[in-house]
Amino acid sequence: MAAVLPLARVPPLGQTGAMATRGTALSENFEQRIPEGDDRLRRVCADCGFVDYENPKIVVGAVVAWQDRVLLCRRAIDPRKGFWTLPAGYLELHESAAEGARREAWEEARAEIEIDQILAVYSIPRISQIQLIYRARMAAPEVAPGPETAELDFFPWDRIPWDDLAFPSVHWALGHFREVEGLESFAPRVNPPDQTGDLTDREQGL
Amino acid sequence: MAAVLPLARVPPLGQTGAMATRGTALSENFEQRIPEGDDRLRRVCADCGFVDYENPKIVVGAVVAWQDRVLLCRRAIDPRKGFWTLPAGYLELHESAAEGARREAWEEARAEIEIDQILAVYSIPRISQIQLIYRARMAAPEVAPGPETAELDFFPWDRIPWDDLAFPSVHWALGHFREVEGLESFAPRVNPPDQTGDLTDREQGL
Repeated sequence: MAAVLPLARVPPLGQTGAMATRGTALSENFEQRIPEGDDRLRRVCADCGFVDYENPKIVVGAVVAWQDRVLLCRRAIDPRKGFWTLPAGYLELHESAAEGARREAWEEARAEIEIDQILAVYSIPRISQIQLIYRARMAAPEVAPGPETAELDFFPWDRIPWDDLAFPSVHWALGHFREVEGLESFAPRVNPPDQTGDLTDREQGL
Repeated sequence: MAAVLPLARVPPLGQTGAMATRGTALSENFEQRIPEGDDRLRRVCADCGFVDYENPKIVVGAVVAWQDRVLLCRRAIDPRKGFWTLPAGYLELHESAAEGARREAWEEARAEIEIDQILAVYSIPRISQIQLIYRARMAAPEVAPGPETAELDFFPWDRIPWDDLAFPSVHWALGHFREVEGLESFAPRVNPPDQTGDLTDREQGL
């Protein structure tokens, strides 16, 4: 399981994310078959024939610096309610990736941010998620919790609540942010070797 | 309109891509409404109640170098049939971004590639597409056209068919590839200023 799912589409932990995030139907009656002209199994509604092409989802977010501190938000919603995360969420239709990251910082922390460059591109294959995480800074000093945020704070490096971070990719992003400190230009970071971004069973409450 | 749509989901040019790529239904009967617990209009099937959450799609691809040349594929399918493009296409479920780029190079050019780093992250908001383009090199010298490719070739810089490239983002990626030549590590490039990645009316055949 991985990062930062928006309110309306939060799958129960332990479910396969990609399927679970597709929404709910009143009379869901999907079957798996290969549509004409395609070469893969797709979900097709046996009632109305709708082909539910599923694609990976894009999460956009940012490590936001203010002086020597970074902005973290304590989640007011499941999954991982009560744990700390970056301002991040699903990219919406007709947004650029940077616009999405700025919107999420506003929605979750009422933070106006200035984006620097892409810090990392993480792949969480089990739940078919690609995370584009930017390095950013505060454009204005004000913040306030949005509806999905219980509280927020700016943490200096030695006070980051490592044991209470919501998702593996939050760990990665903070580590990568530290790694590129002082670099004006750098290649985006990717998943640490052999790490898939899934939550542990314990983190999933199993 | 933008880049490199795979065979089964090619929308007619001139249509709004994001909607058109959602697939076909035998009795499509969608209405726009805000589902319970959500805050945006979504497409909901009036017959079965299915909520069709639409999200931006991820295209993965690569500028693939062999010696001082780059690999281009002439498209065997619409849109932009007959024009030259990079090996690229939609990321599939449960793939990492790099795996998707390698798969597309194989499907379209039977090319085994070694990925170096992310060259560019382009946003094409009108059709809700994010393109992750890698810098890569040939891992083995063999290529052959896949089913969506009419022919392929390795072009030195001064013989790139600039007037016959399929999409604006192919221009951008080639230019950015040249720009970072010799750099071991660099920040990924983004859309050129004020460029949205849409095809011109002429390119759309309007």
